[in-house]
Amino acid sequence: MALSMNKLAVRIAKEMIDREKELKVSVFKVGKASVIDAGVKALGGFEAGVLVSKICLGGLASVTATHFAVEDLYLPAVAVSTDYPAEACMASQLAGWRVQVGDFFANGSGPARALAKKPKKLFEKLGYSETSDEAVLVLETEKLPTEAVVESISKDTGVKPENLYLVLVSPASIAGSVQVSARIVETGLFKLDALGFDLKAVKYGFGVCPVAPLKGDALTMAGITNDMLLYGGTTYYLVDYPDDAKLKELVEKAPSSASKDYGKSFTELVKQFGWDFLYKVDPAIFAPAVITVNNIKTGALFKAGKVNYEVLKKAIGVA
Amino acid sequence: MALSMNKLAVRIAKEMIDREKELKVSVFKVGKASVIDAGVKALGGFEAGVLVSKICLGGLASVTATHFAVEDLYLPAVAVSTDYPAEACMASQLAGWRVQVGDFFANGSGPARALAKKPKKLFEKLGYSETSDEAVLVLETEKLPTEAVVESISKDTGVKPENLYLVLVSPASIAGSVQVSARIVETGLFKLDALGFDLKAVKYGFGVCPVAPLKGDALTMAGITNDMLLYGGTTYYLVDYPDDAKLKELVEKAPSSASKDYGKSFTELVKQFGWDFLYKVDPAIFAPAVITVNNIKTGALFKAGKVNYEVLKKAIGVA
Amino acid sequence: MALSMNKLAVRIAKEMIDREKELKVSVFKVGKASVIDAGVKALGGFEAGVLVSKICLGGLASVTATHFAVEDLYLPAVAVSTDYPAEACMASQLAGWRVQVGDFFANGSGPARALAKKPKKLFEKLGYSETSDEAVLVLETEKLPTEAVVESISKDTGVKPENLYLVLVSPASIAGSVQVSARIVETGLFKLDALGFDLKAVKYGFGVCPVAPLKGDALTMAGITNDMLLYGGTTYYLVDYPDDAKLKELVEKAPSSASKDYGKSFTELVKQFGWDFLYKVDPAIFAPAVITVNNIKTGALFKAGKVNYEVLKKAIGVA
Repeated sequence: MALSMNKLAVRIAKEMIDREKELKVSVFKVGKASVIDAGVKALGGFEAGVLVSKICLGGLASVTATHFAVEDLYLPAVAVSTDYPAEACMASQLAGWRVQVGDFFANGSGPARALAKKPKKLFEKLGYSETSDEAVLVLETEKLPTEAVVESISKDTGVKPENLYLVLVSPASIAGSVQVSARIVETGLFKLDALGFDLKAVKYGFGVCPVAPLKGDALTMAGITNDMLLYGGTTYYLVDYPDDAKLKELVEKAPSSASKDYGKSFTELVKQFGWDFLYKVDPAIFAPAVITVNNIKTGALFKAGKVNYEVLKKAIGVA
Repeated sequence: MALSMNKLAVRIAKEMIDREKELKVSVFKVGKASVIDAGVKALGGFEAGVLVSKICLGGLASVTATHFAVEDLYLPAVAVSTDYPAEACMASQLAGWRVQVGDFFANGSGPARALAKKPKKLFEKLGYSETSDEAVLVLETEKLPTEAVVESISKDTGVKPENLYLVLVSPASIAGSVQVSARIVETGLFKLDALGFDLKAVKYGFGVCPVAPLKGDALTMAGITNDMLLYGGTTYYLVDYPDDAKLKELVEKAPSSASKDYGKSFTELVKQFGWDFLYKVDPAIFAPAVITVNNIKTGALFKAGKVNYEVLKKAIGVA
Repeated sequence: MALSMNKLAVRIAKEMIDREKELKVSVFKVGKASVIDAGVKALGGFEAGVLVSKICLGGLASVTATHFAVEDLYLPAVAVSTDYPAEACMASQLAGWRVQVGDFFANGSGPARALAKKPKKLFEKLGYSETSDEAVLVLETEKLPTEAVVESISKDTGVKPENLYLVLVSPASIAGSVQVSARIVETGLFKLDALGFDLKAVKYGFGVCPVAPLKGDALTMAGITNDMLLYGGTTYYLVDYPDDAKLKELVEKAPSSASKDYGKSFTELVKQFGWDFLYKVDPAIFAPAVITVNNIKTGALFKAGKVNYEVLKKAIGVA
């Protein structure tokens, strides 16, 4: 039987529906689609965040709660482990579907992307496709979707509304913070891809990232959750690659510390450049703090970057 | 469907019954009630301790085994995460029901407390109630309960004996040590409550605490398991609170280090004061080593206290 | 109902069969036996390694993925916890069955050993036996088994081929590396047994061990996976033992650092002695980096050894 990330993720969505109260989520229908609000109107919680993360990863990764010590401060953290890094992170978790219908806007993640092929170019590069009569899409948003949104997603995925599951999560919610930190393995793959590395060579991915405290609105949270990835997130990949010299060079360019803007928290960058800093900042900074790559063809192991406790403490704003 | 901690915990109790041999527990009937001995006559074990902890927390928390490094000494530890801190820790886990029938005595924890409203004042303050035709009570004791004990618990909870599950755990057993360390989130809430903080403002709780080695009888174990919480336990809470200045003040008073008796292990206190020291010691010491609070209303984060490795090593008595 | 490690492990094997694609394993029949290839021709993965480890441990242990920090290098790691250390580690996990049929050779682990009593002497010492009409054997090998191998295992275990499950894992595969690190609790018991300690006195075992990167062929991997156990593996046991003085003496002899060959990675030993070094090296080195023993009879706690980050870094070969 072929592997279907949508089938695997729908199973998790159904578990969330069954555990609605426990997870502090809110379940309702928009048109015929099932909607799970994990942090827009509903409060949501940490456990909901873990399940949303698993859905984002197409059911092909384990996501476990752990802790991360910044000196004596024991932050909650997530550990992500996947035997399907390219599929789970790039063909599913990456927030690559900009869902815009009327005045509803959301960044879409999750396996429904693999049906709608969003973005098309990436799916061509990955060579990944699947068919499924059910689908799940995770929407990072601060609004509830309308029936028009459901219709639009149904059309793009080819899945009937009654078989669609939409999971909502605000960046400013508990679950929203968890699911960003659970993007640590994806963050490293994204950077390796940007550096020209063929992600089909990646056979395993592992990462640990502290979960940001809630510091304010969606924009502020976008900053601090990124700080967790860039200054606290560590990754470890197994790759099958013919050229160690090239791989070494690539790994050295990969961590956030390879960027000229490294060392400032997002809050500081915002102070310096204003909120449009995202267009001024060096894109090379969007990468894990630490990238470790083990070449299973040659046995070589390369590591670059380091955890930056000083920036983490500033970002967290421990008083 | 309303959330019932008793229903969730009964499911875990039934799992313990199914896995009796694996968990090294002993299952039998007292009258018509189901009794699971996890460490009185039975030896019990670590996994039983994790399940007992989940029952104590009313099925509304994850409890996972992890490790805690005291230099090179890797102790087993537990990590607790709950989206329902007030309900799971205060309305269920707190050992707030003194069960005394004839010469049987036990401290009772678990969701049956929420049916019997023990203690009544706390339940009025929490505003928590639930109805259930099944119930679980965890009894910290060194004796087996009698039919009179079952009748008394049945009367107080309004649950028929045949639907009652009693889980026994001695403080001097493996499972007993685990379930005390799993009280780390509760320990912080208890202190915050004692300082006048409204626990309904707490939206999430996370904690990590090393599990004490077995050092002797129930009294000795009461000491060392408390040492783990007070000198090694770290906590992290999300609260929704209007006043950061007050919150900061409160957090600074919260960890064990705010007590004048801080810095001595229980064994040392016993040597100094004798076993009635519990009446002489500053009650402010009963608190986690570290308390971190993130105010989700304002984004502020406050941390107080520190892990005290010196006292931990003395308490463990590493030779 | 009596405990059967074969029954518990068959359940896990069936889960692996159901999740074939997800786990990157390959499932097929050899004769009438079910074979799960988790790393010979199939690539396998980390999650498969965790499940193979649980099978090796006869279903009587938890094996969880965690991380292990060598400075900034966050390696994946496994934590093992068992309430049945002698049974799970010695009567099942120990690679004590040398399966040799024609030119097929494998080290056999897992609960089928308890049916075939391999090796007989050890089972007499442990006093462990079980009956089961189903069995699982884990074969560390680089070849696929033939029907003659199946017939031979069927004969030795008394289990019909159609009820046999054979799990294959190469030492040079991802799952193979994971399952060696998951031998950390076993490694300590093996050493304690070699020192003359009665393993029936061990009531609980816990251990954490980093998972080795893939560095080359089976022989190279035998080296580096051992380095993880010997220089990075930490263990913690509860024992019930009458004599603290003897116990202290024993614990001091137990860790790898008690060996005269301590301090060199396997790669270095191979360079020095050639591949037959296994016959020249002091066998006392096969032990965890850290052994901690808590005597539940007396409350004493003894610890010996330390994690050796320098050797770990050399072994991993971080460039």
